[in-house]
Amino acid sequence: MSDIFFLILAGGAGTRFWPASRASRPKQLLPLSGAEPLILETARRVLPLALGWGNILVASGRHLVEPTSRILPDLPKENLLVEPVARNTAPCIGWAVSTVLRRNPNAILVVLPSDHHIGDPDGFRKALRDAIASAERGAITTIGISPTHAETGFGYIEVGDTIEGAPARAVVRFVEKPNRERAEEFVASGRFLWNAGMFIFRARDMLRAIEQHLPALAQGMAAIDLAAAKGAEEEAVSKIFPTLPAVSIDKGVIEHTSGLAVVPGYFGWSDVGSWQSAWELGEKDAAKNTSPKGAILVEAYGNHVVDLRSPDPGPKKRVIALVGVSDLVVVETDDALLIVPRERAQDVREVVDRLKKRGDEDLT
Amino acid sequence: MSDIFFLILAGGAGTRFWPASRASRPKQLLPLSGAEPLILETARRVLPLALGWGNILVASGRHLVEPTSRILPDLPKENLLVEPVARNTAPCIGWAVSTVLRRNPNAILVVLPSDHHIGDPDGFRKALRDAIASAERGAITTIGISPTHAETGFGYIEVGDTIEGAPARAVVRFVEKPNRERAEEFVASGRFLWNAGMFIFRARDMLRAIEQHLPALAQGMAAIDLAAAKGAEEEAVSKIFPTLPAVSIDKGVIEHTSGLAVVPGYFGWSDVGSWQSAWELGEKDAAKNTSPKGAILVEAYGNHVVDLRSPDPGPKKRVIALVGVSDLVVVETDDALLIVPRERAQDVREVVDRLKKRGDEDLT
Repeated sequence: MSDIFFLILAGGAGTRFWPASRASRPKQLLPLSGAEPLILETARRVLPLALGWGNILVASGRHLVEPTSRILPDLPKENLLVEPVARNTAPCIGWAVSTVLRRNPNAILVVLPSDHHIGDPDGFRKALRDAIASAERGAITTIGISPTHAETGFGYIEVGDTIEGAPARAVVRFVEKPNRERAEEFVASGRFLWNAGMFIFRARDMLRAIEQHLPALAQGMAAIDLAAAKGAEEEAVSKIFPTLPAVSIDKGVIEHTSGLAVVPGYFGWSDVGSWQSAWELGEKDAAKNTSPKGAILVEAYGNHVVDLRSPDPGPKKRVIALVGVSDLVVVETDDALLIVPRERAQDVREVVDRLKKRGDEDLT
Repeated sequence: MSDIFFLILAGGAGTRFWPASRASRPKQLLPLSGAEPLILETARRVLPLALGWGNILVASGRHLVEPTSRILPDLPKENLLVEPVARNTAPCIGWAVSTVLRRNPNAILVVLPSDHHIGDPDGFRKALRDAIASAERGAITTIGISPTHAETGFGYIEVGDTIEGAPARAVVRFVEKPNRERAEEFVASGRFLWNAGMFIFRARDMLRAIEQHLPALAQGMAAIDLAAAKGAEEEAVSKIFPTLPAVSIDKGVIEHTSGLAVVPGYFGWSDVGSWQSAWELGEKDAAKNTSPKGAILVEAYGNHVVDLRSPDPGPKKRVIALVGVSDLVVVETDDALLIVPRERAQDVREVVDRLKKRGDEDLT
């Protein structure tokens, strides 16, 4: 068995992909950038390094167990870490650290979001291999994304000198989401990368860091470990998890840790943050439309058309027809239709808010 | 029983209201200007003059018998004239003339399209009463619509002097759809009305006119009459109808007839010619949107949103959400979604053409 374990964080909710995304069908379960759900693409992307599904863990919430398992049928049941309540990333990563250490004391853990797109998987795996090499030398390592624009929606990582003998560079500091001006300075300086929430470390190094910076979490992990030894892990998690500090691993542990390393990434990364980015990533026709098979587009340009309705049980056909419209997002589900200009795609939140306000939570 | 009979012409097809309208669900069966299908509004509008459903005839095609009867449950079965094939309006009006003459030799017949909207039904009935009074004096009479713009899609009627003692004016001539320039001249002159296909006459006067100008039709009518006397009308119609001259009553008979009269109409008439006119007639919110109950419109202006999907059998809700879009037509049916700018609403024909070309006749 390989020493390399993966933890795919798949507890996310989010309203930016309404009506495709719902509380019960969050972004990572949707095929937003290609034919497969993002979480399945994420897992398949790392399978060559994990050497099989046995080394892939997925953390998610109770209400997502069923759809997540359906999308990942090869994931061993015991590798699905079901968080009884959402407590941000530190408790869940701590639990995964304990889990892999029980299986392999030399475990290296690669923590990845489940809902990002990567255009160049080979380049991504190359960066992961470098990050793993860095982690093997004892550094908690992250992969920082080379910024393509002055984004104010991401945190940044300031990069220091190359680390002697390692394919990584030192981390000077993590920086919160900047304002526009600072973001522009960061990008112009060439010394900043985007924090994409990817962390690579020896499990024992992270355990030590948690013990030092988040002792309450370390205690909880120890209690869960103890229960697991008696075959009562699930019960212990139910009881202990809600009491653990709800903090991100970045803020709770990593930013307090010294000797951090970062591997710069250039592999066509996207956080698939809105329908606009789904369109950017999608396969487009000559008129820059993405559209389902059979759609009829007459003098229609730059539209992002998504049909997520259930297949009709009968032989009945269906068609979506756009005539003379441009740069729209059009999304059909069984119970909703959304039409919004691509450049206003972020405003779907307003629809979700209104639905909640009027008591239509079942549509959100 | 009243002497006044109505013939509602309901054989029309048409593609301008795709995807709402289909070969099997033409425009007159749709609630395009209000809550009820246009044909039902048409029938209800004349009920006070017909003195009940017994004096209302509806002419339609075989494939429309079922949906038409469902929409008009009070129409006596024997008052539905089922044309075995479409042969334009003359044969069908001839058949209706024979039918009402058998019931009442003094019958006056009012021929009306089934798919128009009338904003002021009282004004309309007043015009009808005038036209009936004119017909009672032996004139084949039409109601001409006072034009509101230089429309090139309608035929025109040139109006002559007031007819002494009758609430009508003489017809100088019928004019085919004019080009833009002539249409502007017509409207500027004040002497032209739109031909809306409404004809009012004593049945015996029309019989005489048909005998004179369309003898082949008169022979067919006589043969059908003969068969009807033996209780074999349906069989005779099946055999004879396809042989009758396929011509409009305007061109085949009326335009060759002298002593025609016209009553000018000012009653908020619309031929409901496209989604654009359906929007014009529809009930709009403060932002000039027409939309189904429960739709969510955020900074959306002037949209015409139509939801014609079957009611969901379950308790499931559905929502249509428009954010930041203006002046669109959005139509949802069970098997199609159309999005087109209001001002390009006529271009839905292109969609129907493409569907036919690729073999999807069942969607047209």
